[in-house]
Amino acid sequence: MKLKELGEFGLINLIHDLIDKSRNPEHTSWQRLLVGIGDDAAAWQDGNHIQLATTDTLVQDVHFDLSTITWEELGWKALAVNLSDIAAMGGIPQYALISLSLPDELEVADISRFTNGMAPLAEKFGVAVVGGNLTTAPVVVITVTVTGYCQGDILKRSGACPGEYIAVTGYLGASAAGVEMLQGKINLDAKSTRTLRQAHLQPTPRVKEGQILAQQGVKTAIDISDGFIADLDHVCEASKINARIAWEQVPVHPLVRANFPDYQQLALYGGEDYELLFTANKSVMDKVRRAIDCPITVIGEMTEEILPSRVTVVDDKGNAIPYERRGWEHFRDGASKAKFE
Amino acid sequence: MKLKELGEFGLINLIHDLIDKSRNPEHTSWQRLLVGIGDDAAAWQDGNHIQLATTDTLVQDVHFDLSTITWEELGWKALAVNLSDIAAMGGIPQYALISLSLPDELEVADISRFTNGMAPLAEKFGVAVVGGNLTTAPVVVITVTVTGYCQGDILKRSGACPGEYIAVTGYLGASAAGVEMLQGKINLDAKSTRTLRQAHLQPTPRVKEGQILAQQGVKTAIDISDGFIADLDHVCEASKINARIAWEQVPVHPLVRANFPDYQQLALYGGEDYELLFTANKSVMDKVRRAIDCPITVIGEMTEEILPSRVTVVDDKGNAIPYERRGWEHFRDGASKAKFE
Repeated sequence: MKLKELGEFGLINLIHDLIDKSRNPEHTSWQRLLVGIGDDAAAWQDGNHIQLATTDTLVQDVHFDLSTITWEELGWKALAVNLSDIAAMGGIPQYALISLSLPDELEVADISRFTNGMAPLAEKFGVAVVGGNLTTAPVVVITVTVTGYCQGDILKRSGACPGEYIAVTGYLGASAAGVEMLQGKINLDAKSTRTLRQAHLQPTPRVKEGQILAQQGVKTAIDISDGFIADLDHVCEASKINARIAWEQVPVHPLVRANFPDYQQLALYGGEDYELLFTANKSVMDKVRRAIDCPITVIGEMTEEILPSRVTVVDDKGNAIPYERRGWEHFRDGASKAKFE
Repeated sequence: MKLKELGEFGLINLIHDLIDKSRNPEHTSWQRLLVGIGDDAAAWQDGNHIQLATTDTLVQDVHFDLSTITWEELGWKALAVNLSDIAAMGGIPQYALISLSLPDELEVADISRFTNGMAPLAEKFGVAVVGGNLTTAPVVVITVTVTGYCQGDILKRSGACPGEYIAVTGYLGASAAGVEMLQGKINLDAKSTRTLRQAHLQPTPRVKEGQILAQQGVKTAIDISDGFIADLDHVCEASKINARIAWEQVPVHPLVRANFPDYQQLALYGGEDYELLFTANKSVMDKVRRAIDCPITVIGEMTEEILPSRVTVVDDKGNAIPYERRGWEHFRDGASKAKFE
């Protein structure tokens, strides 16, 4: 069987099973492990606090197109997607390792731009770039690993309970709308163009917000990378319950709603918004709203009901809206990112 | 200027300088940092012990050829090269993250083989594989990140003192000889073939030995990945002194000496032996010899003398042996691995 037949999620499960067989409870590494494959970051107990590590790879012509992204934006984004994973655990990012596989025909100045694009984001969140690896390759492949820690409890994909509200930070769909715009499918005014470009190429991860969620008692979160529905599906799978979403509550980015006829698709399935999706009961949700600066929108609830699928989106009359697709899947569908953490 | 004109080490220095400009001593990450870019692994203080992190990338047709390496060997080697970096810091490896960029035409069974090849090495050194990333790519690119810690002091590339002996664990040249054999340049008997194949494709990192070096008071070490001379040159550069090597003392692997006319080249410049090169005074060297099981060979000394180059190899009459080459350099020379940790 070929990878494109098994698909990314099948491959993740296969690797997970194989690794699990090698688990040896006599080793302290396994004893201290809190979260292994299957979450936004790995987590282990280390003295008084919890250590985190996550890694993410961007491949030329799979995740980015050098004709539409600048090297500064690429530097920013390569770090941002990892910081978003630390954010989804409620963690404080600390150190980054950068592995660059590069064609030898590249301009040195482009690598300076890449580094200069990454530096302000590292500085913003107190991250020190402390090492990495350089190698020749036929296409640009960038792997960033970020370590961090949690002062209190971590956020996980599992642990969501029936009756808990489902909420998201910020707005959805702007990143995917940015892709359509960069592909030339639409022309917008300068300000809107800048906003959507930034949403896709220079997202700001919700690092502080993730820490606040954990402090206020949230237990379950994920960042929106694969797509809102796909990521909520990961939460449902990990938590072994279902989710019902009210479509009219979904905070579609105003620019997307105003300019893109397929705004529902973009918001639900587009992905790479790097917002946080989390669940909490009413009392915790109220505390979160008071403690956090960014918009928080409740859009559904976790449920033990038997629904048409793990995630069901209903319209304002309570009728299920049929799925058109469930977000990208590597190998099977082609592009976009995927993790087996 | 193109990368191939600047070369790998120029690029490392460039990135180092750019990152250094972003250093902000107000952030705890920078305050706690002990070793950043420019060593085998990054190291930072965390409570009572030192945390380590390292990353290494293998690219198809740059670092390996799928017509000569099995997927099991590739799984082993991808982890081994990272464990060797932890060993070179005197550390205890703990967790691994595996980023796999793969063509979608690959067989699923190959990825099972890859995982099954990695598992016994992880088990041997108590490493838990706790996450990673999967993505489509035109060629196979594997980035492994390993975290670990030190119970006492770390080994660094810097800190070597004039008058200290230079020693290596084990034997040199077998990995590079393995490459020549795999390229069909020589035919050997079955046992020799197996030995050289394993030396190149399934090296066993000197993890325990690195820990013993640190315990016995060694301060300076590096693993032999770029090549003995190139790696000793890194130590000289970091320590700001020179080194004089007695060629006749170099522990060339017996199979290499017996079968390869260019054995001197292979041992001095071949690389990927994943032995440890370290410096110590006589008293520490004696303690190391008593504490360690593997062969330890003293082959020269660190010196403040002005020599023809940072590393000078002399023959049995004390005459400098001219350099033929100084190990691979990425972008400039093509293949082999390179780090900016």
